[in-house]
Amino acid sequence: MIGIFDSGIGGLTVAREIRKKIPSADILYFGDVARMPYGNKSPETVTEYSREIVRYLIGRGAETIVIACNTASAVAAAKLRREFSVPIFDVIAPAVSEALRPMGRAPRADRRIAVLGTRGTVGSGAYQKALAAASKKVKVMALACPIFVPLVEEGYAGTAEGAEIVKHTLRPLVSRKPETLILGCTHYPLLRKEIRAVFPKARLVDSSAVALDLRRDLFQPMSRLGRGGKKTGRIEIVVTDLTPHFLRFARKIIGSAAKIKKIGVERLNK
Amino acid sequence: MIGIFDSGIGGLTVAREIRKKIPSADILYFGDVARMPYGNKSPETVTEYSREIVRYLIGRGAETIVIACNTASAVAAAKLRREFSVPIFDVIAPAVSEALRPMGRAPRADRRIAVLGTRGTVGSGAYQKALAAASKKVKVMALACPIFVPLVEEGYAGTAEGAEIVKHTLRPLVSRKPETLILGCTHYPLLRKEIRAVFPKARLVDSSAVALDLRRDLFQPMSRLGRGGKKTGRIEIVVTDLTPHFLRFARKIIGSAAKIKKIGVERLNK
Repeated sequence: MIGIFDSGIGGLTVAREIRKKIPSADILYFGDVARMPYGNKSPETVTEYSREIVRYLIGRGAETIVIACNTASAVAAAKLRREFSVPIFDVIAPAVSEALRPMGRAPRADRRIAVLGTRGTVGSGAYQKALAAASKKVKVMALACPIFVPLVEEGYAGTAEGAEIVKHTLRPLVSRKPETLILGCTHYPLLRKEIRAVFPKARLVDSSAVALDLRRDLFQPMSRLGRGGKKTGRIEIVVTDLTPHFLRFARKIIGSAAKIKKIGVERLNK
Repeated sequence: MIGIFDSGIGGLTVAREIRKKIPSADILYFGDVARMPYGNKSPETVTEYSREIVRYLIGRGAETIVIACNTASAVAAAKLRREFSVPIFDVIAPAVSEALRPMGRAPRADRRIAVLGTRGTVGSGAYQKALAAASKKVKVMALACPIFVPLVEEGYAGTAEGAEIVKHTLRPLVSRKPETLILGCTHYPLLRKEIRAVFPKARLVDSSAVALDLRRDLFQPMSRLGRGGKKTGRIEIVVTDLTPHFLRFARKIIGSAAKIKKIGVERLNK
């Protein structure tokens, strides 16, 4: 079973992609809605919350963990790997590989890559360090876009006012002409059209890149999860809080068939 | 000592007003930054968080509690009053009285009042019920404005894009011509200019109205807190998470002299 977690339900976009790439895998998705968002919180707080969730997922039988939250990936992944023995995937390394993949005739290095993320993700420098370590010639710029998550959650994607805020937020990057943008937050792909309007020619890379890495890794040890598997995996969604608003938002991402269950946040501490 | 709490630090606008009206009172302010915002969370979760905080504040010596958070006032105040014996003030009743106060020659009743708040506050119907109970003739309309809190926290107050979003959000109310608007969230006064631009003639009432009620009530039993008191009260600010971003935001509201201390959220459960 694959345990996936996020601060809220944005990570369902990652779960959806994993289901598409590895249909036979059983998935347990955990969304910490009662304490979301993580993007503006301190590294210590985000690490502690993540630790509680990983402990819960392993307790429920998860053999592989996917941190679908960019902020938690950025600030907590390394610590969690030292503390737990199961494989822990984050969404940063796969997006970095994808961003550095050769693109048409353009050279692999010497490219201008912009990272968009929450304040926590950008402030951690995780993407910037991973890109710099992978290629010395790449030019990296990073911009915190903390208003993007509420814009998406409050339904401003697809509105003129939402597009204005996106344009205003991205303004500092325009003159620096990035060729590739990493959408370093699971909500940002839902603003793809608005971001694309500001950077019509750039390539957009997002967190769903982790699904390919996961499939590659899981194929070897667990062939039953392979492409040829007949059974379709189950998906269970657990959240620490549930309101009609978030239920609607979750249904939009993952469809109406999936069951969503609420557990109290105090259950994590036991 | 007066214990004041909010989901974050927006309630510092209320604390500031209380300090102005009752300078000699000692204040312990609690901001639940690690779990904020409350506005989109379920009544059960908000009530449980509020209960933990009130228990903490009383444990620290608070003799009076002010719920500076509109969402917690709306969904948890009645329950908390049944569970705890100290006086518990909320921000809703004072704002309702203020909104119904006669205004020039206009009659007290038969007025059009709009309530702006988070999804939790508006959904609870707390303002609507309180207004309807106080006056049968008043016409009440309510609108959830969940994007306003992130707009303020991310610095869009005072920008053209922020004003556009405010205008877009308030659009459903324009044709209904409210004469009074209740800014039912501690962040909203920071968008006063933008709201005023949409409703140039309306009266704006906010949560700081609680400070007057509090002074009236405290004067009788505790005359040492009175206007004549010589000493200036202490203020202590405790938050469950602290980032440079929120520290800057808090300083803007309360000034740079106040000390801000972080305690872990797990300390609340003990």
